[in-house]
Amino acid sequence: MALSRRELITRAGYALGGAASLATLQSCSSSADAAETTTAATGPQVKDFPYEQHLAASYRLDPVPVKEAAYHGYYAGGCCHGAYSALVGHLASTAGAPFNLLPLDFGKFGGGGIASYGSICGAVLAGHLVVNMIVANATARAAMMTDLMRWYEGNAFPGYVPSAVDTLETGLTKDFSAGNLVNLQAQPRSHLCHPSVSGWCTANGVSAGGADKKARCARLTADVAGKVAAMLNTYLEARAYTAAALDATSGTCVGCHTASSTGNGVNNLPPSSASGQACTPCHSDKTATHW
Amino acid sequence: MALSRRELITRAGYALGGAASLATLQSCSSSADAAETTTAATGPQVKDFPYEQHLAASYRLDPVPVKEAAYHGYYAGGCCHGAYSALVGHLASTAGAPFNLLPLDFGKFGGGGIASYGSICGAVLAGHLVVNMIVANATARAAMMTDLMRWYEGNAFPGYVPSAVDTLETGLTKDFSAGNLVNLQAQPRSHLCHPSVSGWCTANGVSAGGADKKARCARLTADVAGKVAAMLNTYLEARAYTAAALDATSGTCVGCHTASSTGNGVNNLPPSSASGQACTPCHSDKTATHW
Repeated sequence: MALSRRELITRAGYALGGAASLATLQSCSSSADAAETTTAATGPQVKDFPYEQHLAASYRLDPVPVKEAAYHGYYAGGCCHGAYSALVGHLASTAGAPFNLLPLDFGKFGGGGIASYGSICGAVLAGHLVVNMIVANATARAAMMTDLMRWYEGNAFPGYVPSAVDTLETGLTKDFSAGNLVNLQAQPRSHLCHPSVSGWCTANGVSAGGADKKARCARLTADVAGKVAAMLNTYLEARAYTAAALDATSGTCVGCHTASSTGNGVNNLPPSSASGQACTPCHSDKTATHW
Repeated sequence: MALSRRELITRAGYALGGAASLATLQSCSSSADAAETTTAATGPQVKDFPYEQHLAASYRLDPVPVKEAAYHGYYAGGCCHGAYSALVGHLASTAGAPFNLLPLDFGKFGGGGIASYGSICGAVLAGHLVVNMIVANATARAAMMTDLMRWYEGNAFPGYVPSAVDTLETGLTKDFSAGNLVNLQAQPRSHLCHPSVSGWCTANGVSAGGADKKARCARLTADVAGKVAAMLNTYLEARAYTAAALDATSGTCVGCHTASSTGNGVNNLPPSSASGQACTPCHSDKTATHW
């Protein structure tokens, strides 16, 4: 995909929450331009991790520009790039170092569940990477990652209505207007790209390679990036975080399939289970008595 | 877990392929010590991404110390931390900047399939993050990520035999010696932690919270980190990479469930599928005719 310099500037403006300058634009540039950038020799460095220590006590993210940047970022490099570049770009332009020392293109690998493999949703993965950058409290960090995946699995996507439709969003067969969006929504029931995308396409009778899927995932990318911004604000306010509980049915499952079970399928003991996920979306044949 | 300074030095020595000095040891330290480190104001910076451009044409990784460091790194912070700190630590000590400007603790979030959620195997995720750092060719990068996941799904784990058993590896009920390891091996059939760990524990009649599982995952972490080092060397030699093909059965599936299908379950057309994964491990009920 070839973009003109004007388009790049426009996109970078979105990614930086409308506060782009030529100097900050260069931070979005490819490696070929990297030598042009000036790196701070003093102040917070990338190695001074995690980065919560470099944020002012009152610092909060603004989810509004993050969502719009994530939506456009999807069309520039996929779901993971959209969420990653929007969140890191916003942090860079509003909090400075060390966020402005990071490459904004780092998330391009994660699109389509990592290299289109259908693994973890790239927008969710981007959210994890950014949460991991910031949150120093390991218990809260894990709770936030668990909560993001549980929220994603049960949320009806897409929900975001962009301020400006991206110039690359053409050829739609479905009506993504604010008034009709609810009719296109579906719960992924999994944090993995493959069931999330394939399930949505099946529910709407559209193809996974078509324009409608891209429009859905661009809006989902905005939804996820906005959720991550809001979660980070919740954490920064409380310096703690509590995840939503596992659903009751799955709670029954792990009441037998515990971390200390030693069953092997032949000794009448339940096999052990290592997971924080809901059980029934995959193990739909195990909801009734099965021993 | 509290480690003495001597233990920290020993572990850092492993992580850095045996070439640890006090200066490089500080690069492994927590954020509390970060202010002590010296950051290069010139030379390759973190933002100068991807990092292939900073490697000498003849640069290759040494998988041997990477594997041993990854094994010990597992006990210091989980599978993702083990693979990430071993690979980035080795790159930092053998290739320098910008790898030595990165925090070695970045991978601790990924253990147990990200915050113990059972998503993508943390060692595989660490491999993706390191491949993504280096490989400039986007086609090769995607092929390497696809290949790593396909290899993982079909490989019999664990395979690594450590040079020195970690001091934290105690309480085993299974024999992990070189002569018996083959009897403990199982193929994950998925790149996700939950089926990988739960399946191995079930096959061996052990618990997911026990010492045997940790010993298995520590060795698997070494196996994955070594594979990533070898894959990177293959790429650095050829500056290209080709992934193994999808298995033949799954190839039949995606012959109907294409990216351009528009089925919705009621119109006699196959639903579309977005995935690079093998189909049968999850869709075991769909191997025979199902329309």
